[in-house]
Amino acid sequence: MSTFNVELKRVVDDTYDISIGYELQSELIDDLGKGLVGKLKKFAVITDTNVRDLYAKPICEKLIKAGFSVDMFVIPAGEKSKTRETKAKVEDAMLEKGYRRDCCIIAVGGGVVTDLAGFIAGTYARGVPFINYATTLLAAADASVGGKTAVDTPLATNLIGLFNQPKKVYIDIAAWATLPKRQMASGMAETIKHACLASKDMFEFIEENLESILNFEKFACEYIAENNCRIKYEVVMKDERESGLREILNLGHTVGRAIETVSDYKLLHGEALGIGMAAEALLSARLGYMSEEQANRVIELYNRAGLPTQIPDYIDRETLVKKLYTDKKVRDGKLRFVLQKGIGDVVEFAPGVYAKPIEEELAREIIMEL
Amino acid sequence: MSTFNVELKRVVDDTYDISIGYELQSELIDDLGKGLVGKLKKFAVITDTNVRDLYAKPICEKLIKAGFSVDMFVIPAGEKSKTRETKAKVEDAMLEKGYRRDCCIIAVGGGVVTDLAGFIAGTYARGVPFINYATTLLAAADASVGGKTAVDTPLATNLIGLFNQPKKVYIDIAAWATLPKRQMASGMAETIKHACLASKDMFEFIEENLESILNFEKFACEYIAENNCRIKYEVVMKDERESGLREILNLGHTVGRAIETVSDYKLLHGEALGIGMAAEALLSARLGYMSEEQANRVIELYNRAGLPTQIPDYIDRETLVKKLYTDKKVRDGKLRFVLQKGIGDVVEFAPGVYAKPIEEELAREIIMEL
Repeated sequence: MSTFNVELKRVVDDTYDISIGYELQSELIDDLGKGLVGKLKKFAVITDTNVRDLYAKPICEKLIKAGFSVDMFVIPAGEKSKTRETKAKVEDAMLEKGYRRDCCIIAVGGGVVTDLAGFIAGTYARGVPFINYATTLLAAADASVGGKTAVDTPLATNLIGLFNQPKKVYIDIAAWATLPKRQMASGMAETIKHACLASKDMFEFIEENLESILNFEKFACEYIAENNCRIKYEVVMKDERESGLREILNLGHTVGRAIETVSDYKLLHGEALGIGMAAEALLSARLGYMSEEQANRVIELYNRAGLPTQIPDYIDRETLVKKLYTDKKVRDGKLRFVLQKGIGDVVEFAPGVYAKPIEEELAREIIMEL
Repeated sequence: MSTFNVELKRVVDDTYDISIGYELQSELIDDLGKGLVGKLKKFAVITDTNVRDLYAKPICEKLIKAGFSVDMFVIPAGEKSKTRETKAKVEDAMLEKGYRRDCCIIAVGGGVVTDLAGFIAGTYARGVPFINYATTLLAAADASVGGKTAVDTPLATNLIGLFNQPKKVYIDIAAWATLPKRQMASGMAETIKHACLASKDMFEFIEENLESILNFEKFACEYIAENNCRIKYEVVMKDERESGLREILNLGHTVGRAIETVSDYKLLHGEALGIGMAAEALLSARLGYMSEEQANRVIELYNRAGLPTQIPDYIDRETLVKKLYTDKKVRDGKLRFVLQKGIGDVVEFAPGVYAKPIEEELAREIIMEL
């Protein structure tokens, strides 16, 4: 018998830039010309039916004009496209077109497109580079920092995927004005969540300037785009593999994710999160980590942003309670919740521990109240 | 407009041990008790119908006896199980059983099982640890070092997957004796390939001791297990992301992979590789990189090991030529081959360049000769 040691210690540098601005297509093409992804000449633009004409096509045309080889792969818009089946379809279409490892993927769209395309990039020919061109506030808030990519399965959302960092992210604020109102509101859900968990200043800025944001005023949109990145970055930097601190980004998601699934995606992610944040604010207040008045301020801000904070009647509450157990934070069969400490902070239950085991009965009580 | 810099430089340590020996189940259990994968208590044993009873079941029983929680997930034996669909089925079964991120996957089987299970581990809950218990010579030769995991798709083999390093690999030589003769021969294909590309000594050892290997004599089996690991490790260490040097491990695979697919997996991987190695030896001789006599020695050794070195009649040669273009080494639409320099070395065409563009006509000629 013998032992062979495989020594595999290395420095990985996934550093990248996020560009925040208006109409960034030309900047993207310039960056590629300057070698953002080396000498690669072959690009797969993955997009959805919502933004194909407005954003993906112009980007493709500019790429072709700049001498690159490009194909566009279009998925149906909506969370229902975030599946292994859609992933396989795009892969097969790319294989059919002769894509090998010497290519780069450009995701043009919202969180569904960037999540799916980032996952495809991570496993295509064992990994090709990818770039996110984010056209929604949700993608800007949620998908720009952290490298989380995934698909949903019938039994759980976001459980199959990987950590994969883009080469660059473009947050095109101009695109937000083209979003349906419901999508923009949905994006605000993660933005308000970031404020709740990390910045009282940001929370108060949103309270004061919500109308300016929803009217796409430049100062307000840039403020939230930058602060979303900053907050998420600060959390992710300290815990890239989501072992402890990073769980705080899951604030509101224990109930939110479950509702999203039980609603069969009739609720958008941000809408489900609005309800989830209300649940966790009530729970935090119940356990004494924030005042009733603070919990109400959170709920009120979600309402003002046009988001639901109550469970729709068509959701069976007992089914919802059962669904909570598909949450990634479940450990040893116990539900675990991230809780708010006032506004702009979360509770650290022990050093590095930010999720608290909660009895099913208490979770059920809160759900029955909503 | 503003730019936000996401700084993500870090040290990754994927160092692991390969244990080479006889009947290593107890060692595996001991290692887990000693914290090989930290405090994890929940294990998913992925195996196939061939080794379920002989190896996977005893391992599961020992795990349960040691106080761990275990489920066994069995896939049909054979390359046809290495698909996205089988991956999804295992994932769904694991989700159904409540597996979340706090679990570890143990692959028990040959290369198909370790490739598939390593890929599943890489994307389950965005990555859970995995361990390989390799029961075939092929898995020992091919899948123990390098971290390559993948599935096949209708359009290409091994193109969807990722680099993922196991926590430990167990090479159980005792298991080789339970292999069908055809499987053992197939494993010899990669072993001889390693000798061809890196070690004249190893090649001569196999020439002299082939019968001892095929009779599972200890000194001979340990020699090839260790040398397979060593050679692959030396190559992989110098080029973990397969940018240049690592392509030499692809010796024989340009034609081999294509034949494997065109045969619809009637040929085992190693059988297809035998033919691919013959093709590349002939090509190397034709281009003056090795003598005819050396090429014949390579072909002869494959034959003695019980492997085909001629293309079966049922393979359409023109279909095969077309299939060559699905090879991962294809660049700018040109076929590229790794070539042998005598026995025990490969040709370096330019610094760091080990694959040479070959005209389709020349590739066709060689294929017509076989």
